Amino acid sequence: MTGMLDLADVHSPLATLLEQQLERIAIVFERQLASDLSAVNALCLHVEQYRGKMLRPALVLLSGLAGADDSTEESTLTEKHRIIAAVVEMIHMATLVHDDVLDEADIRRRGATVNRMWDNETAVMLGDYLISNAFHLCSTAFDPSINLALGQVTNTLCEGELIQLHHREDCGLDEATYLEIVRRKTASLIAECCRLGAMISGADPHVSKALHRFGESLGIAFQIQDDLLDLIGEERIVGKSLGRDLEKGKITLPIIFYLQNATQAERGLGLKLIAQTDADALHTRLLDSGAVEQAGRVALDLVDQAKDELSVLQSGPARDLLMSMADAVITRNR
Amino acid sequence: MTGMLDLADVHSPLATLLEQQLERIAIVFERQLASDLSAVNALCLHVEQYRGKMLRPALVLLSGLAGADDSTEESTLTEKHRIIAAVVEMIHMATLVHDDVLDEADIRRRGATVNRMWDNETAVMLGDYLISNAFHLCSTAFDPSINLALGQVTNTLCEGELIQLHHREDCGLDEATYLEIVRRKTASLIAECCRLGAMISGADPHVSKALHRFGESLGIAFQIQDDLLDLIGEERIVGKSLGRDLEKGKITLPIIFYLQNATQAERGLGLKLIAQTDADALHTRLLDSGAVEQAGRVALDLVDQAKDELSVLQSGPARDLLMSMADAVITRNR
Repeated sequence: MTGMLDLADVHSPLATLLEQQLERIAIVFERQLASDLSAVNALCLHVEQYRGKMLRPALVLLSGLAGADDSTEESTLTEKHRIIAAVVEMIHMATLVHDDVLDEADIRRRGATVNRMWDNETAVMLGDYLISNAFHLCSTAFDPSINLALGQVTNTLCEGELIQLHHREDCGLDEATYLEIVRRKTASLIAECCRLGAMISGADPHVSKALHRFGESLGIAFQIQDDLLDLIGEERIVGKSLGRDLEKGKITLPIIFYLQNATQAERGLGLKLIAQTDADALHTRLLDSGAVEQAGRVALDLVDQAKDELSVLQSGPARDLLMSMADAVITRNR
Repeated sequence: MTGMLDLADVHSPLATLLEQQLERIAIVFERQLASDLSAVNALCLHVEQYRGKMLRPALVLLSGLAGADDSTEESTLTEKHRIIAAVVEMIHMATLVHDDVLDEADIRRRGATVNRMWDNETAVMLGDYLISNAFHLCSTAFDPSINLALGQVTNTLCEGELIQLHHREDCGLDEATYLEIVRRKTASLIAECCRLGAMISGADPHVSKALHRFGESLGIAFQIQDDLLDLIGEERIVGKSLGRDLEKGKITLPIIFYLQNATQAERGLGLKLIAQTDADALHTRLLDSGAVEQAGRVALDLVDQAKDELSVLQSGPARDLLMSMADAVITRNR
């Protein structure tokens, strides 16, 4: 399946093409991580089950198709697209493994996390192995401009994570800072997936720039929805440990809105519930106060902005699928 | 100061040249890590004090000089040498930051570790920031073959760390596996410093290959000595938390030799002391049994092998300094 869309439900030649390409990307991915050491292979086999949504590779491919002259032609997608698609998924997977250490999470994609199955040390080192392999695989494309661009993006991504840690338990965090954190830690990579996909297809710079903006808005919306699911989702459906944001002092958009709109008395109570990490009581107040809805609206507006950017593309199935993926960011429940 | 040598004590034009180049490398390093976020800069400022020995950059420079036709000419050392020298130091620093998480260490280069001053999460993410910046900086050299080579080396380095974790508390670890772990986690990067330095200077392939072997033997000897210092060094002199290897179940060469040579009764006692992490009692037995001396001899032999490789170089101050650095691996006490 690609991204938030279950391609099995999208009966089109493009969906079939994407499925086939994603299978080839999975092979590039696995081949890259293969080691002569069985202990290392056992770890990689375990994290490969995290590779669920394949959102980022799908965006590389779809942007690759959408940015080309003929967006339905299979030959538009080159080995370079597949290498970069595998690279961005590997970078993403590295952040998942390290995030699980940071979050002390036990469940990821319905399976045990590495830190749970092995230990934190192994999770740190396995994340490093994934980062290293991502850069090594990227170098096999022999295009220094891509190395440079992805290096810049991972710098930005780490900065996002570092400011997030810096603002832990900071109930004074404002919307602008929250959005900047999210832009860096999540949206920067998603935006680059879209830009690089189109660029590799030889798209006009104004098209790859528009796709970059598309990815950036989409990425921020995606993270807002992720944060909402952590607060109000069901672990069984979402498939990972929930309620961790609050436990780890991560202040997300619904909480920011709730505290911002609250009376002084309500705010005092809210701060107390946050300090006590009383998720259930806070949950009710976030819903009743309209803060969850307000955060959802921000995500929705961002999805609309993202979709507007797609007007530079010629109409066709690739653009249609990007539109559907943008909508699915909001409607998904995992 | 470079490597294990205090260049202030080496009165030569080459020592002065190296000092100057290392200062320029420090600037490349700091400029690369500069962020628009003050919280990120505070962290980087803290880790920059780890940048003590600069062994790896010094090896890039010296190999760069030794591999050139005129090994005393300042102009031999290019911006590419300095970029790669800063990159390898950044990779090394990232491993130090993540090793401190792995080791739960409190002291590094006489200062508090990141995990002690901030927390483990910040240390994980800061290490990632350093890795990412290393690859980004490497890409600014616009030489895909270097990206590829260093990506391969960091893959190998992570594999070394992962097998080491896999063999934690494995008192059946043998000498060959120990040496393979050390070759991957420590020697692979040091060897590549030497090879790349010479390669960038346009050295003949047989020279860069000999320098790679020099670095590999030197790197293994370096790690053996590091492990010996962890067992028998003084924290005040070594400048980092000691005795951590035993606490973290890391079986090193003196312990391997001790268990290998011991009578059955002695072996039983040794295993008990290891399980109890009774460092003082074990310390005495490792010294008395000759296991420490035996491990030291392995390191010494490796240094001799390393020095033999230097015979491909023309005689001159660069070769002399590489010789002295090789000797200093053994004589150093920190």
